[in-house]
Amino acid sequence: MDAVVLEENGSPRLVDRPRPEPGPGEVLVRIDRVGVDGTDREVVGGNHGGTEGAMVLGHEAVGTVADPNGTAFSAGEPVVPTVRRPPGDYNEYFRRGEPDMAPMNATVECGIDGADGFMAEFVAVPSEYLLRLPERLAPAGFLVEPLSITAKALELAEASREPFTWERDRALVLGTGSLGLLTLPVLDERFEEVYCLGRRDRDDPAVELAREIGATYVDSRKTPVDEVPAAHAPMDLVVEATGHAPHAVESVSALAPNGVAALLGVPGDHEASVELGERHRELVVGNRAVIGSVNAGYSHFERAVEWLDSLPPSVVDAFTEHVYPLREFEAALDRDVIKTAVEIGP
Amino acid sequence: MDAVVLEENGSPRLVDRPRPEPGPGEVLVRIDRVGVDGTDREVVGGNHGGTEGAMVLGHEAVGTVADPNGTAFSAGEPVVPTVRRPPGDYNEYFRRGEPDMAPMNATVECGIDGADGFMAEFVAVPSEYLLRLPERLAPAGFLVEPLSITAKALELAEASREPFTWERDRALVLGTGSLGLLTLPVLDERFEEVYCLGRRDRDDPAVELAREIGATYVDSRKTPVDEVPAAHAPMDLVVEATGHAPHAVESVSALAPNGVAALLGVPGDHEASVELGERHRELVVGNRAVIGSVNAGYSHFERAVEWLDSLPPSVVDAFTEHVYPLREFEAALDRDVIKTAVEIGP
Repeated sequence: MDAVVLEENGSPRLVDRPRPEPGPGEVLVRIDRVGVDGTDREVVGGNHGGTEGAMVLGHEAVGTVADPNGTAFSAGEPVVPTVRRPPGDYNEYFRRGEPDMAPMNATVECGIDGADGFMAEFVAVPSEYLLRLPERLAPAGFLVEPLSITAKALELAEASREPFTWERDRALVLGTGSLGLLTLPVLDERFEEVYCLGRRDRDDPAVELAREIGATYVDSRKTPVDEVPAAHAPMDLVVEATGHAPHAVESVSALAPNGVAALLGVPGDHEASVELGERHRELVVGNRAVIGSVNAGYSHFERAVEWLDSLPPSVVDAFTEHVYPLREFEAALDRDVIKTAVEIGP
Repeated sequence: MDAVVLEENGSPRLVDRPRPEPGPGEVLVRIDRVGVDGTDREVVGGNHGGTEGAMVLGHEAVGTVADPNGTAFSAGEPVVPTVRRPPGDYNEYFRRGEPDMAPMNATVECGIDGADGFMAEFVAVPSEYLLRLPERLAPAGFLVEPLSITAKALELAEASREPFTWERDRALVLGTGSLGLLTLPVLDERFEEVYCLGRRDRDDPAVELAREIGATYVDSRKTPVDEVPAAHAPMDLVVEATGHAPHAVESVSALAPNGVAALLGVPGDHEASVELGERHRELVVGNRAVIGSVNAGYSHFERAVEWLDSLPPSVVDAFTEHVYPLREFEAALDRDVIKTAVEIGP
């Protein structure tokens, strides 16, 4: 079967691999589409995850059950696989159904770190790591995984504000990549005003989509993160989806009192001089919080399916516009446009 | 009546002031004891809060109802006043019973910022800002306010970890001041192991008390905050109670995966070079969080009364050992020992 693999210190290649044989409790899934995001580009660039030898790329997948193999699934059902697997034996995080809370040494991540991903014609997936998807959502099913990332981050952010009356007036997303853009319609349902900050020109399709979703675009080349309150308004929620390291501290200054910043991006090293005292005071005196969040658990995938079902059709169209055939996987990996994906199924 | 006031740009002085007349809904309280903490010293030093003209000092008080003035209180009842008041008209935060969530421009703080405190023979307190205290707790009643600070911080920290299984193995308190020390017995009830980090010698009474409570002392001159995991163990909770600005970022590195740092101290300006990328990654990939917390609401004061009731008698003794008569208020303000207080009542 066809598969896109990344070899250590190499470029991704389309290769022939044996079709996997599902073991006990595993479902054979025919992969239909695999989304591409910033993490894939980091992995390909050698800046994140990877594995010894060759690894199949791709972690945002939707497929169809090819062989239920005695599990509760049925042939032909659309399914989405989750990303984390135990790194050998089961551990407490997987036993609890909280693989997303496992430290890095207690998990592998399919297509990202230490395990084969989904950019292949077939994969064998333990049934507990598969979600059913309504048929109508299948064409956009590769958006479930990125939406699950937002679902978890929002759950953590909301939980941190639960002890008091949190005013949800304004939310700001840092980043116009696919995760940032996909977070906008979710926040637009939950906040009075939604803002989106990036480094793109105003006629860029990503910026046009952000505006179509209802977000106010902030060009960070003119208005840096910590100047957003003065230029627009202080934010009750900031979602960091770029992995630009200074954003963690700058976000604190973009927050309204009692606001929370959720960090999703994974930055490289970045040393900088910071006025720590002022940031620290803003956190304390303003009851602000900064929450890191990585990956997502089964419940977040389930919420993501609900969210996908409630996205406006025009937004789904924009996110599924750039789907490339498998042989053009390099275009999907290279092209920086709203969202790209690879089509694998027949 | 006697009162200790701070004049703008002056030193605190014992002066004669007219006894307050309680207005409608206000209770006349005879103050018995007022605790002193780092915030008072910051205020006296001109580094925090203050007011135009003269301000009565003191925000950690316990007193006795002298005149219920038609309220539900009874003469002779021990009471503790809360600290925040509306800065004129009532606002939404006070209406909701969440004055601790008010931004600084929507509140004043008795004895700290913009309103007279409690270091006086009598104060008039609106009944809604008074808590009843069991008679047996009255001698240590000035500990309710600092315990309420910990109660709120712990509530926020716990809420932020509520969506998943938070392992509460180890907690670290940064600071051997009165707030840090008072937090130790509370955490000792809730965590397997408790650590306390400071800059005192091992034979200092504060360090001896920390050990008596059951905490492992960490000398920050030998083991900086971010080296605590290597020297001891990673921490599931860090409580920052010094106001040393670099602690906010250093705390992130002291945390175990899924851990949370609660910041309580209010630092001055402090510019420093920081490896932001690594801290950001630790937050994201480790699902860590940093939570700022200031002041406390009525529910936190109520919890603090319960906690005070459950403190070991030897701990209460240590915290009430250094109570000075009012005329020696300067010793209470100056002396850096476990906890000082001023005795005002007859």
